[in-house]
Amino acid sequence: MSNAIESRLAELGLTLPDSPAPAANYVPYVISGNLVFVSGQVCMDENGFIKGVLGDTMTVEEGAEMAKLCGLSLLAQVKAACGGDLSKLKRVVKLTGFVNSTKDFGDQPKVINGCSDMLVDVLGDAGRHSRSAVSAGALPFGVAVEIEGIFEIA
Amino acid sequence: MSNAIESRLAELGLTLPDSPAPAANYVPYVISGNLVFVSGQVCMDENGFIKGVLGDTMTVEEGAEMAKLCGLSLLAQVKAACGGDLSKLKRVVKLTGFVNSTKDFGDQPKVINGCSDMLVDVLGDAGRHSRSAVSAGALPFGVAVEIEGIFEIA
Amino acid sequence: MSNAIESRLAELGLTLPDSPAPAANYVPYVISGNLVFVSGQVCMDENGFIKGVLGDTMTVEEGAEMAKLCGLSLLAQVKAACGGDLSKLKRVVKLTGFVNSTKDFGDQPKVINGCSDMLVDVLGDAGRHSRSAVSAGALPFGVAVEIEGIFEIA
Repeated sequence: MSNAIESRLAELGLTLPDSPAPAANYVPYVISGNLVFVSGQVCMDENGFIKGVLGDTMTVEEGAEMAKLCGLSLLAQVKAACGGDLSKLKRVVKLTGFVNSTKDFGDQPKVINGCSDMLVDVLGDAGRHSRSAVSAGALPFGVAVEIEGIFEIA
Repeated sequence: MSNAIESRLAELGLTLPDSPAPAANYVPYVISGNLVFVSGQVCMDENGFIKGVLGDTMTVEEGAEMAKLCGLSLLAQVKAACGGDLSKLKRVVKLTGFVNSTKDFGDQPKVINGCSDMLVDVLGDAGRHSRSAVSAGALPFGVAVEIEGIFEIA
Repeated sequence: MSNAIESRLAELGLTLPDSPAPAANYVPYVISGNLVFVSGQVCMDENGFIKGVLGDTMTVEEGAEMAKLCGLSLLAQVKAACGGDLSKLKRVVKLTGFVNSTKDFGDQPKVINGCSDMLVDVLGDAGRHSRSAVSAGALPFGVAVEIEGIFEIA
């Protein structure tokens, strides 16, 4: 696959992970009409889930890196939903970002920016999205960030 | 009503509750195009709301039962949205599950599986959905689980 | 602009704020088909963000006022999405309300009612929506309430 988006990913030195398998009896994405609803993606790398609590064990900068990892997993799922051809992705519609944090943490937007900025870097205007960024009370496996997304495809 | 889904519910010994009334000035579901957006359903039975905190006063297994109750309420709302005919339900698109838990609880996926597994048991492949599972900071009336859903109908 | 909705806003003594700018690299709303996905709006007034913790530093009544402010910001964004003409708004589809609260707070529905009631006051039946109301673990800048919404336009 060598379209503009894949080229831009390469240019930015970004690699999409294998589209992660769900942690339970559900599917990574569902296509309804021209919307793709992607399941919440938690921060993980080749060593597994990455735990952390913003405002305690993890800095905002580290959290933003975690959000970027979630975003790459979201893109990997969308690529799978597009049958491998990301040029079918029309735009990112909506992200909901959940942060694992202390009770008095207030920089959720800066954390989730790690995902938002990457999407705009890779996709340009098609990457601009509506968004909510909140802290969860707790996240699966103690991960630092979980992000779900709605995407529009051709 | 005696379609395949109703038969399967009976076969599994499951009974849909009366579609619960909202706790406030809103409606249980809205249909837009062929999507049904169902309001967050909290765990309750004939005795009322079921309170609990995962990781403290409630086990994962009990939590999964609560999620199943939420799922039955979701199905009851979808049935109402379909004018009583669940055969019009095309598929479950997306669930968002909120768990009431301690700060260090990490088994949200296992809890929400109680809903996901029931939906796949009842609906087969049409029950497979995208999903996010997180802990809330707190839930209405102290209930253990709240789940909202998006469904596609004919 | 002098349509029925604007008249009703005036009648209720409500003024839409300037549609607030996002706190980060994303956009206030995205239109996909005839749905408008509006980013989470946090409670703020001309003096800036309004902080508070329900069950601690803020009463349910004050929280409902905060939710109403979020709702006015949502309407302002929808108005912008409609090119300034709110008569293009067909209905409110879905709200997700996040409350900043103590762990044992259970009146999220009463808080988010401040938004729901205002929308029904202003829009009539078109304002009735599906909804989830939960507490977040924490909210951006320590605000008391954040609400996101999905709206259907002509």
